[in-house]
Amino acid sequence: MNILIIGGGGFLGQKLAHRLEAAGQLRNSEITGLTLADITAPGAVAAPFAVKTIACDITDPAAVSGLLTARFDTIFLLAAVVSSHAEAEFEVGMQVNLHGVLNVLEAARLTETVPVLVFTSSLAVFGGEVPDPIRDWTIPNPQTSYGTQKAIGELLVNDYSRRGFVDGRALRLPTISVRPGRPNRAASSFMSSIIREPLNGEEAVCPVDPDFAHYYLSPRMCVQNLIRGAEVAAADLGQNRTMTMPGRTLTIRQMIDAMTAVAGPNAAQLIRFEDNPAIRNIVTGWRFAYDPAKALALGLQADNSFEDNVRYYLEDDRPA
Amino acid sequence: MNILIIGGGGFLGQKLAHRLEAAGQLRNSEITGLTLADITAPGAVAAPFAVKTIACDITDPAAVSGLLTARFDTIFLLAAVVSSHAEAEFEVGMQVNLHGVLNVLEAARLTETVPVLVFTSSLAVFGGEVPDPIRDWTIPNPQTSYGTQKAIGELLVNDYSRRGFVDGRALRLPTISVRPGRPNRAASSFMSSIIREPLNGEEAVCPVDPDFAHYYLSPRMCVQNLIRGAEVAAADLGQNRTMTMPGRTLTIRQMIDAMTAVAGPNAAQLIRFEDNPAIRNIVTGWRFAYDPAKALALGLQADNSFEDNVRYYLEDDRPA
Repeated sequence: MNILIIGGGGFLGQKLAHRLEAAGQLRNSEITGLTLADITAPGAVAAPFAVKTIACDITDPAAVSGLLTARFDTIFLLAAVVSSHAEAEFEVGMQVNLHGVLNVLEAARLTETVPVLVFTSSLAVFGGEVPDPIRDWTIPNPQTSYGTQKAIGELLVNDYSRRGFVDGRALRLPTISVRPGRPNRAASSFMSSIIREPLNGEEAVCPVDPDFAHYYLSPRMCVQNLIRGAEVAAADLGQNRTMTMPGRTLTIRQMIDAMTAVAGPNAAQLIRFEDNPAIRNIVTGWRFAYDPAKALALGLQADNSFEDNVRYYLEDDRPA
Repeated sequence: MNILIIGGGGFLGQKLAHRLEAAGQLRNSEITGLTLADITAPGAVAAPFAVKTIACDITDPAAVSGLLTARFDTIFLLAAVVSSHAEAEFEVGMQVNLHGVLNVLEAARLTETVPVLVFTSSLAVFGGEVPDPIRDWTIPNPQTSYGTQKAIGELLVNDYSRRGFVDGRALRLPTISVRPGRPNRAASSFMSSIIREPLNGEEAVCPVDPDFAHYYLSPRMCVQNLIRGAEVAAADLGQNRTMTMPGRTLTIRQMIDAMTAVAGPNAAQLIRFEDNPAIRNIVTGWRFAYDPAKALALGLQADNSFEDNVRYYLEDDRPA
């Protein structure tokens, strides 16, 4: 089992690499190699199998073809320009999120192998005038360029799979919280900051009001679901290889209450509410009521509670 | 009002040109110029305004940029590789139906003007496990590469419109019947052949059985709906510029009965039923139960009856 993680330098890619290292196998097959590729060479991961790290710009078709000359049984395609970035810089978003994904699929098409390919899509594909809850057969009607590019990726993964070029699975990620590290250009970045920074003893700004509701998943469960996504039998996927990862819907207030329940009342004092129309306009266009029936039937899972998400952050990610 | 029809050499492009010539105006603005572009220079149309015909390969970004240096107020983007062709030749379909559409949108983005852009999508975007009837918020779940490419075009038209690069409208065409001319590589081609050829005194082969149901629209009403699509106010389009054109659902038997009602019993004797698995596999993956609520609310229309479709063919298209 030779595995490639494109976007292997990001926090999800790194967590996934560590989880694969700990498991030692995927689809009941011993892992013999792991390659982590990203725009700059990712951090290495110590493992009992060979781990390579490679710098690869997915907007460069030749670089992607070169990367895929190695025979990979499973590819995790996590690389992307995030939502606010793709909204602010249209051409960059199109190059990475549309043409980059096409470059990977085309390179895979032109190899002899048919890798399992797990593509991370996003809830940002949903929006506009569609009835709640969002079901597996609800139209992606994105109201951002990022969501548009992800929805296109889903369609491509489906068609390249139907034609037998890859064995693809497109998993729509809920907002990941509590995400480790520093704030990024995802419009959803604050949904981790308002928990992470206070738990680290730092101030955080919340750009929407406490009643704002959203759909969340912990990094730990997200990684588990990515692996499950790679393990589902192709025959069980039916005629649409896209599914929404199970999550939990909470308001900002409920997230903060969960943090208080786990870590005491002081952390919440570090949150300042300050309206930010640019962020608010993006995230209030997203939807928060989902029925992820297909993913649940295939064994993907939500967290038990947001209290768990807070605990996972403290256990897995809080700086020492 | 300067108008461009990309795909102006096809039967719909030519009919649209004639209709515009007869109307002399679009959106209450006098037509001053009409350009017909296609892979080979289209037939000219006599009109009281300037009509240009241009050969333009939409897979060539420079050619498309050159075409759009003229200021167009309205662009009809009809050019496509049809369903069986895109299924048989994957790379050709991707080049024309995905990259060609991207080339047009990118060229429009980089001009000063914001043209109304009417893009022809298709019912082929629908398929797989979705409940009937297909509504405006049903997921496009295409089971062909053609349908995939059209669904991607819809998403792009939406995002380029949301960003203000074009004022787009994506109209999903039902199967057009009775289409004039000769059979083509559309998998749906037989749905015109079995009426058109017998009305012309020729034999026709039907590759599916008489109970096969599908969703149809006449060329005459399709052109009327394309024009209506260009005339709808942007503010009335809401957060999704895609809609399914109204049509009528009929079985092959009902189509033949309508032909008999209009033209007498002899024509139907010229139809031979002969199973064709390649065609059957594509068209039975399409759906036939639609609720085109959005298009109806915006003034697009279905035909009154398939008898009308037969009459339109006899009046508009039957060779003398």
